[in-house]
Amino acid sequence: MTRPGGSTPTRGADGREDDVLQRIARAIGGRTPVPGEVHIGDDAAVLRPLVGQAVISVDTAVWGVHLDADLFTLTDLGYKAVAAAMSDLAAMGARPRAILVAVTAPAGTDLEALHAGVGAAAAQLGCPVVGGDLSRGRDVAVAVTVLGECPGGGAVLRSGARPGDEIWLTAPVGASAAGLRRRRAGAPSDDPLVIRHRRPQPRLLEGLAAREAGAHAMMDISDGLALDLHRLADASACGFALDEIPASPGATAVEARAGGEDYELLMVCADGSALQTAFAARGLAAPLRIGRIVAEHEHRTLGGQPLDREGFQHDF
Amino acid sequence: MTRPGGSTPTRGADGREDDVLQRIARAIGGRTPVPGEVHIGDDAAVLRPLVGQAVISVDTAVWGVHLDADLFTLTDLGYKAVAAAMSDLAAMGARPRAILVAVTAPAGTDLEALHAGVGAAAAQLGCPVVGGDLSRGRDVAVAVTVLGECPGGGAVLRSGARPGDEIWLTAPVGASAAGLRRRRAGAPSDDPLVIRHRRPQPRLLEGLAAREAGAHAMMDISDGLALDLHRLADASACGFALDEIPASPGATAVEARAGGEDYELLMVCADGSALQTAFAARGLAAPLRIGRIVAEHEHRTLGGQPLDREGFQHDF
Repeated sequence: MTRPGGSTPTRGADGREDDVLQRIARAIGGRTPVPGEVHIGDDAAVLRPLVGQAVISVDTAVWGVHLDADLFTLTDLGYKAVAAAMSDLAAMGARPRAILVAVTAPAGTDLEALHAGVGAAAAQLGCPVVGGDLSRGRDVAVAVTVLGECPGGGAVLRSGARPGDEIWLTAPVGASAAGLRRRRAGAPSDDPLVIRHRRPQPRLLEGLAAREAGAHAMMDISDGLALDLHRLADASACGFALDEIPASPGATAVEARAGGEDYELLMVCADGSALQTAFAARGLAAPLRIGRIVAEHEHRTLGGQPLDREGFQHDF
Repeated sequence: MTRPGGSTPTRGADGREDDVLQRIARAIGGRTPVPGEVHIGDDAAVLRPLVGQAVISVDTAVWGVHLDADLFTLTDLGYKAVAAAMSDLAAMGARPRAILVAVTAPAGTDLEALHAGVGAAAAQLGCPVVGGDLSRGRDVAVAVTVLGECPGGGAVLRSGARPGDEIWLTAPVGASAAGLRRRRAGAPSDDPLVIRHRRPQPRLLEGLAAREAGAHAMMDISDGLALDLHRLADASACGFALDEIPASPGATAVEARAGGEDYELLMVCADGSALQTAFAARGLAAPLRIGRIVAEHEHRTLGGQPLDREGFQHDF
């Protein structure tokens, strides 16, 4: 990828930006080139035609804002940035085709460590990193774009929930927030809950299964179940009545409700048995029914009590 | 778009991030929704199927790095970030389909001014802003992703130049650097050359024409003609012999050679007459022949003298 040119003409020696880009390409790692595609190195990446709808999203992770810089590594940041972005494709039921990574960083940043995390996530998710960009800035910030496809169409929106639908969850929540709490208290990086914070796993296969099972609405939980479910209900112009919010082993009720960053999926469908069948057919862990959609917009409850909008938002 | 969740559960009131996102959507402006597409507001944007190859790129513009924060506005930054990214699609001969904008900014930044620039560029280029992201950071940084399509395939790479090919340019260069120099010397924002720095025009129609005319290789000039032509020659494993580098009226020879940010296109083709015909048929300004490709990799000359790699690169 080219970068935006600088304001001041300066003499560019070999062994500067162009060289760094080559080292980064190596750090991202040795995927086999996709026949008929051109990835890093040209003005833009060229991909074979997408099948069906194109689905695209961008998410930024900032070192020290989205991940504690004292407790985690740049490799964790790269991994988590890719996983968080990819979760948005999962939430549409899309199949990933390409990742692009735009990094800003101050001089001296270990960009190879950061991109090693990007490469590890991409490899785990089976999706190539096809492009990127590198700029000077005070923060280490990683903007990840993900491009996917929905063969046959029918990407699942937030806005399709209908009164009477059931609300399902891919798995219990709160592990990420619990892992952060444990890490702050001195737990090592390889503590199982800490790993859930460092290396979240987007639910791509579950999202595909839910779309094929005819889910009416879907959303990933990035900012906390309580806040994100309110957003889904807003988009669908309805309310909800939750029976429970299942907490991951080791997570508190608050962490489950408002912790965020678990990247589990909220799935809304008329027919839970179709969802269960689709998950079982793919060998996925059984989804959990947690409540139902109601017609009254203002009705937003957990166990009969009002559920606040509680979760993570930036102040601006 | 969802944002990556925060590390710490915090109570999210209405009137914070979600509200800002709505104001930004208004600032980006009132494009008519594209039938069958879903843009800002869901986990990801959904687009009607692309035609032919998918072409995608990302470019970041940092306030104070890519644009002088004392001399230009946040609206300029938003406009320029979109234009610079879109130029990468022009350089492939692709037709734009979608823009996504990921912004990091400190609290108190006038995000509406920034996104007004994004919206103005998108409207001028006839391409919708389909998604975005907003994060807290110390810098104002704008990462712009552009997605396009090549109906019929044949995106034009940097690597296809062959000995004997002619090198063409869409227009004289150096206006952007000249505009920056003039602005620094006190010229007003609406000085014609200053406008060329603030509001560059990516050569989308010219790129489409060059692809259809069978160009062998193409690249946009973002970091300076001298540096970018070396990159094209590297990718094509060849050398070049330039006759001249035409300077925009008001630009110096150095500004033309190494200034960058003009976003004119370097086009390499066997048959210049096909290129001229394609440009004329579309009512585009006639392209300029500036030299030819030679077989010897080390032969990189301007008027018979060696041409240095001179242009903008970041230090890392």
